[in-house]
Amino acid sequence: MKKPIGIFDSGIGGLTVAREIMKCMPREDIVYFGDTARVPYGTKSPNTVIKFSIENMLFLLRFRVKIIVVACNTSSSYSLSILENDFKVPVIGVINPGVEEAVKVTRRGRIGVIGTSATIRSGAYEKAIKEINPALKVFSQACPLFVPLAEEGWLKDRVTYDIAKRYLGSLKAKGVDTLILGCTHYPLLKDIISKVMGRRVPLVDSAKLVAGHVKELLTREGLLSDNKAAPRYAFYVSDEPKKFAVSGKKFLGEKIRSVKKVNGYV
Amino acid sequence: MKKPIGIFDSGIGGLTVAREIMKCMPREDIVYFGDTARVPYGTKSPNTVIKFSIENMLFLLRFRVKIIVVACNTSSSYSLSILENDFKVPVIGVINPGVEEAVKVTRRGRIGVIGTSATIRSGAYEKAIKEINPALKVFSQACPLFVPLAEEGWLKDRVTYDIAKRYLGSLKAKGVDTLILGCTHYPLLKDIISKVMGRRVPLVDSAKLVAGHVKELLTREGLLSDNKAAPRYAFYVSDEPKKFAVSGKKFLGEKIRSVKKVNGYV
Repeated sequence: MKKPIGIFDSGIGGLTVAREIMKCMPREDIVYFGDTARVPYGTKSPNTVIKFSIENMLFLLRFRVKIIVVACNTSSSYSLSILENDFKVPVIGVINPGVEEAVKVTRRGRIGVIGTSATIRSGAYEKAIKEINPALKVFSQACPLFVPLAEEGWLKDRVTYDIAKRYLGSLKAKGVDTLILGCTHYPLLKDIISKVMGRRVPLVDSAKLVAGHVKELLTREGLLSDNKAAPRYAFYVSDEPKKFAVSGKKFLGEKIRSVKKVNGYV
Repeated sequence: MKKPIGIFDSGIGGLTVAREIMKCMPREDIVYFGDTARVPYGTKSPNTVIKFSIENMLFLLRFRVKIIVVACNTSSSYSLSILENDFKVPVIGVINPGVEEAVKVTRRGRIGVIGTSATIRSGAYEKAIKEINPALKVFSQACPLFVPLAEEGWLKDRVTYDIAKRYLGSLKAKGVDTLILGCTHYPLLKDIISKVMGRRVPLVDSAKLVAGHVKELLTREGLLSDNKAAPRYAFYVSDEPKKFAVSGKKFLGEKIRSVKKVNGYV
């Protein structure tokens, strides 16, 4: 089916999810929307996050997308059930894929979750984990400085290490054996997070897992593309396209060609 | 004159300006708008900052304000001249008051400016300083982590000190003798900034100076209030009011009573 996959995020972080979808389904067209004028979502209230998420979804629906991927943990935490309930198009978020993986790999049933303040406050990860297995222990920690640190590019710095030690200290003390990176920016800080948590604590990065879920759903519904030509990728943002193209490169792993700015997109 | 003073900011930082205006002109009614749904502005592009600033101004104009105070450095940097040109109501920003003070107190003509990425990129401070005295040297440094650190409340922490040392090192090396705090959040980090820069480098915090400018303008134009009753303060935000009331307290220095959320405010 020739319709594109729609992906939205509060900004550039969701490009890590787009990247894995491109790798996993190289024939699919993709329309990506990053709400760079209103980023971040992780410090905002539930109602605002829900409102923005619905607006982003409405924008993507204009492209007759066959599936919507909510590539933002904060959006997924607060708006996924609403989007699933209210819209016809299938919607996949980033919470469940990460949770399923964590539940699989945990050895002693002690799962840690890190994310933005809003994601952690929502309790979405904890709820999803307990739904699979109520006996599992979940320990959560908001890490509000991780996104600005990742955007500053201080990926291997002493200062970032000190901050990570401070945020992750309590999780480590609680004997967490698996850590979910509940924000699309955090994989950039993987080295430091792993150094603090210890090499034996696997870090669950949901980008790849989300791509697997998308493929599975499209296959099941007979919606996979049989496109023979090169896939078309379109990127839209609510703020300046140039900055997105430049800083997005390290998230997407390749050059971002066409980025367009959207005005009054709902 | 009974009309209120209108103040807007990208979020809560502008409350430091509101606080000084309250102290300096205790008879004036105030309407404050904080664009907490779209905060921060300091990472956004000029066009987006200008658009948001105009929208905020249009919202405040509904209250028939007699003056508009742009209490956000990023907004002031990009939109002040447009707002001044296009609207009838007098507009005061936070750049010029700080600049006038810095030019007064500098001993060796080496002025440092710190602010958000957008403020520093705009060159607004440098331009304003050079207009007064082209012989003055200006050294600028964006400090993107200062706002998240201030909001995290790490005001006296080792980590904040290390980050400040890193940001301010080059300014110190250049022999800056006066430092403009070009963001309303930075006064919260005054102790640490001062520790890094040395006690002999005065820090220019424009909040008080802006209040002085407002009073001067209102006096000159015969617009001061002769209100005998207690002044009325109204606070509006675009995101959740509760969070604003709680975290705003440390910026305003007193309890924030009535905060209302505005929907689709333009």
